[in-house]
Amino acid sequence: MSPKVTTELLKQLRQVMKSPKYVQEPVQAYIVPSGDAHQSEYIAPCDCRRAFISGFDGSAGTAIVTEQHAAMWTDGRYFLQAAHQMDNNWTLMKMGLKDTPTQEDWLVSVLPEGSKVGVDPFIIPADQWKTMSKALRSAGHDLVPVKENLIDTIWTDCPQRPCKPLITLGLSYTGVSWRDKIIALRSKMAERNVLWFVVTALDEVAWLFNLRGSDVEYNPVFFAYAVIGMNTIRLFIDGDRMMDPAVRQHLQLDSTLEPEFKIQVVPYGSILSELQAVAAGLSPKEKVWLSDKASYALTEAIPKAYRYLTPYTPICIAKAVKNASETEGMRRAHIKDAVALCELFNWLEKEVPKGTVTEIIAADKAEEFRSQQKDFVELSFATISSTGPNGAIIHYKPVPETNRTLSVNEIYLLDSGAQYKDGTTDVTRTMHFGTPSAYEKECFTYVLKGHIAVSAAIFPNGTKGHLLDSFARSALWDCGLDYLHGTGHGVGSFLNVHEGPCGISYKTFADEPLEAGMILSDEPGYYEDGSFGIRIENVVLVIPAETKYNFKNRGSLTFEPLTLVPIQTKMIDVNLLTQKECNWVNDYHQKCREVIGAELEKQGRHEALRWLIQETEPLIRVQ
Amino acid sequence: MSPKVTTELLKQLRQVMKSPKYVQEPVQAYIVPSGDAHQSEYIAPCDCRRAFISGFDGSAGTAIVTEQHAAMWTDGRYFLQAAHQMDNNWTLMKMGLKDTPTQEDWLVSVLPEGSKVGVDPFIIPADQWKTMSKALRSAGHDLVPVKENLIDTIWTDCPQRPCKPLITLGLSYTGVSWRDKIIALRSKMAERNVLWFVVTALDEVAWLFNLRGSDVEYNPVFFAYAVIGMNTIRLFIDGDRMMDPAVRQHLQLDSTLEPEFKIQVVPYGSILSELQAVAAGLSPKEKVWLSDKASYALTEAIPKAYRYLTPYTPICIAKAVKNASETEGMRRAHIKDAVALCELFNWLEKEVPKGTVTEIIAADKAEEFRSQQKDFVELSFATISSTGPNGAIIHYKPVPETNRTLSVNEIYLLDSGAQYKDGTTDVTRTMHFGTPSAYEKECFTYVLKGHIAVSAAIFPNGTKGHLLDSFARSALWDCGLDYLHGTGHGVGSFLNVHEGPCGISYKTFADEPLEAGMILSDEPGYYEDGSFGIRIENVVLVIPAETKYNFKNRGSLTFEPLTLVPIQTKMIDVNLLTQKECNWVNDYHQKCREVIGAELEKQGRHEALRWLIQETEPLIRVQ
Repeated sequence: MSPKVTTELLKQLRQVMKSPKYVQEPVQAYIVPSGDAHQSEYIAPCDCRRAFISGFDGSAGTAIVTEQHAAMWTDGRYFLQAAHQMDNNWTLMKMGLKDTPTQEDWLVSVLPEGSKVGVDPFIIPADQWKTMSKALRSAGHDLVPVKENLIDTIWTDCPQRPCKPLITLGLSYTGVSWRDKIIALRSKMAERNVLWFVVTALDEVAWLFNLRGSDVEYNPVFFAYAVIGMNTIRLFIDGDRMMDPAVRQHLQLDSTLEPEFKIQVVPYGSILSELQAVAAGLSPKEKVWLSDKASYALTEAIPKAYRYLTPYTPICIAKAVKNASETEGMRRAHIKDAVALCELFNWLEKEVPKGTVTEIIAADKAEEFRSQQKDFVELSFATISSTGPNGAIIHYKPVPETNRTLSVNEIYLLDSGAQYKDGTTDVTRTMHFGTPSAYEKECFTYVLKGHIAVSAAIFPNGTKGHLLDSFARSALWDCGLDYLHGTGHGVGSFLNVHEGPCGISYKTFADEPLEAGMILSDEPGYYEDGSFGIRIENVVLVIPAETKYNFKNRGSLTFEPLTLVPIQTKMIDVNLLTQKECNWVNDYHQKCREVIGAELEKQGRHEALRWLIQETEPLIRVQ
Repeated sequence: MSPKVTTELLKQLRQVMKSPKYVQEPVQAYIVPSGDAHQSEYIAPCDCRRAFISGFDGSAGTAIVTEQHAAMWTDGRYFLQAAHQMDNNWTLMKMGLKDTPTQEDWLVSVLPEGSKVGVDPFIIPADQWKTMSKALRSAGHDLVPVKENLIDTIWTDCPQRPCKPLITLGLSYTGVSWRDKIIALRSKMAERNVLWFVVTALDEVAWLFNLRGSDVEYNPVFFAYAVIGMNTIRLFIDGDRMMDPAVRQHLQLDSTLEPEFKIQVVPYGSILSELQAVAAGLSPKEKVWLSDKASYALTEAIPKAYRYLTPYTPICIAKAVKNASETEGMRRAHIKDAVALCELFNWLEKEVPKGTVTEIIAADKAEEFRSQQKDFVELSFATISSTGPNGAIIHYKPVPETNRTLSVNEIYLLDSGAQYKDGTTDVTRTMHFGTPSAYEKECFTYVLKGHIAVSAAIFPNGTKGHLLDSFARSALWDCGLDYLHGTGHGVGSFLNVHEGPCGISYKTFADEPLEAGMILSDEPGYYEDGSFGIRIENVVLVIPAETKYNFKNRGSLTFEPLTLVPIQTKMIDVNLLTQKECNWVNDYHQKCREVIGAELEKQGRHEALRWLIQETEPLIRVQ
């Protein structure tokens, strides 16, 4: 990778930062955050403005350009990548290191007195605006919204905003009609005395209307907003996709409906003016509900006294708790996904010794097997296919420059997943196609112990996921080892592979309590820089647990693995497992054999079935 | 307990709330928080204003009195007690329950438009003021500081503020002279570019000057503030205790010293005016460092631009990491404390079957045995001596009305500790003087497993205590059980038995990372309302751990128990323990036998020694 040459671009940006055509007053600094107007984690090419201006295209990073400087803040996952991709116009700000200034502190240290700092108010979340604005103001500067995105003014070949056809999901997939979701949402609004709800996150719009799209790679979402009143529904969306008869019928656009369920379709770009109109019509005590992560532009459209902000919206919380239809869909998706992986691993076991399989070939092969499965839509994220030292790069994605050939001498880590119409998958397996060393087996076994400790944990109803994180680390900690990422994230149902409001992490974040029906990943790991990476990841469903007692009648929860792919027993040092852990592995493999075996049989995939049976032989622990 | 009759008092309070003698403008509500001007957890009788006005004397609670209402917010520990102690002028606001309004919401719901809410600015911490003031302002009301405490104006027989003699601690106790502590503090101030540091917490003043007092029961502190400049030291303290030659010599008040170590003794009451004078002399960029929990009055004395606020002061953090002299002192104190408890438990085992020992007698006996030990000063908190159902009341303190007789049929829980000149102790043991039921043993064993899981945990340097909390609960959770309190708190060195900035809790709080030398409690429990309570508590020292590997060179930590009192093996269902847990108990008991046995021998306490030997017989686990 050679760095992007940005001298000319920065010059142009600095010009528009002073141009009366775009800014009321010149801005001395311009902030280019990662996100889009919906605060999405994955963004469309037209929203990759930070990558355009800097060259750095990792998933997290904020660029700030002043008249003299250009600086990029990113986290530990991306220090190397950012350093490679940016030319020396840029200073890399390594977040998490002690001496790295915050964006605010840095701005204060470099700006001339009384500076204006510009940002696109649609891209910056309201909570970040608040913090940044306060810090700048207290140092005598001003954060100002710049209506026109300044990057867009210099990005001559900026791709168009995608506007792809929609997929409608029937009741067999969603379990609840959009109409019933609106009713439930309005009842939550009534509880809080709120008259309007603004849906800003793309996956929340998709979930609410039981629609899916493909505007953003890996995430089956489409660009839209919605504003739900007690008697009105407005969907802000562009393109002729609303002409599709299937969509019209799904949304009952041409039916005579009670007026409160009549959907008004409005252009995507009119959200701000429509919200301003809503705000203008409010009487005292009438409130508008928004996520506190909504953009500054939309938040600001509602006068403060009328705003009702929460960290998680009722849609986010309802979406996280999967109903029976969604859970069944997720089960089906995970069975299909396991079939594809059995095929892949069987194929790899034969092909790797020949020395012809690279990381990219393996990733492509995984996609090929997945795409053979029913209702396959696309991958759910860029496949992490990494062997040897590449496995230690936690968010690795093979590219020609780094592409390594799989061999019988190195550990191979595959973290991959897919979108099926009935569910989303995300699974990591770590394999050795030769003979692992005792040390590799030891590390793998600690990671496995952590994986089991979370998966088999029993905990009271209402427990927050972050309280389970240390269970995943305990076996590693005992030997002085650890891993520097969280243990699990929420997973959508044919939606984003990362979703709130639950998770399992040592980082304190305002996660919502776990409840039955939530779906998360369980993915501890161990990484040795320059040598190898190990991660074992299942998607797990929160289910009620039967316990001997029931303190304060709270009830208990535990997890059921939805992922049913063998965990390579060759990598396990069985003497490091307790009998309970050994039983867990054997029970898990028994279930893989039964459930996936039946499906492989049904699909006539006999060779993969033989592989599955061989891989699920019970472990025997010598006392 | 009959409730306090408060009708007349409330009438008087409502009068002064309108009296121009005390308030510039009438206040429609007056807030009476729990604390004193130092935000102490334990307070002197003269500061028990909330108890005076309401009758409720639990350790936590906030009273708010309006023209029409009187309401008390307290937490789950005190729902019953508060309901018993308050008459029906008062509404109990049960914090933590879903439907309980916050103080702010309640005020907004009951106050007439444009109300003034008064509070003593010395009693309310600045951070609480901020939250409360913001909420009130956004609803059109005002929080106003009322200079004279309105409770004091109607409290005719208010006790005097204590002003007891001071104890000086030499280097053999403290390890570091006050002079060196000042030097270290000034270097922290220089690091942060701060010119002044205001010491507001009583234990921080005591620690800084290597002085102790007895102004507050159980906490060896004295009423004082200090203001440390780069060249000046001001100690705000009242009474003739500064006339004591030992104190004068300790502080070198009469020596010729470099001016920057010359202590100026100033009256306690002049802190505000002195701080205002300091503030008036500040130039731009000169900062004053305060805890963000300091009172609103003192915080407000420093203009915002000059304030440097942190949740934990450098003194709080330095105080938490005990040096070798303090650690050795803590060890000595715990040995003496164990001797006293061996005597007590031996005595109880003989006396309980006679049916003559009540909870109060047992508590008194514990104090008697402790007071026989060298350098005993006082108890470190009110002894929790509870049998049968009283054991389920987590913060129980026996009083004549509830006093229960110990018997061979009930579980007995004793949570007690003392202040010795060399250290502070806090230990809980749960005993049965007859034959425990299988269920009682089962519950006890789960609690023990949790205790061991924390005590034996190995974790990376820099881990925060809250990440260890779930280890203490895991065995209970597996069976559907739990306990509704945190697992551990910091412990002072001949100082407060509860101190920051570390702890072990499921509640997310901004705890500082654990480091070697910190001292905490490890005290999981299980409580069955109406039946029994179980808690096993040791004070433990954070020490470096030897591990097989050392990820990123971070190093690992673990705990060493300082408390060396046998854990009743009769209560253990040994078959529920793993071999590792069984070994832990046996190793622990071996150490108790060696260390405490030697001390009992030395003190000629032969009967207690026989008891210790019998109680520390190794457990044998049948495979």
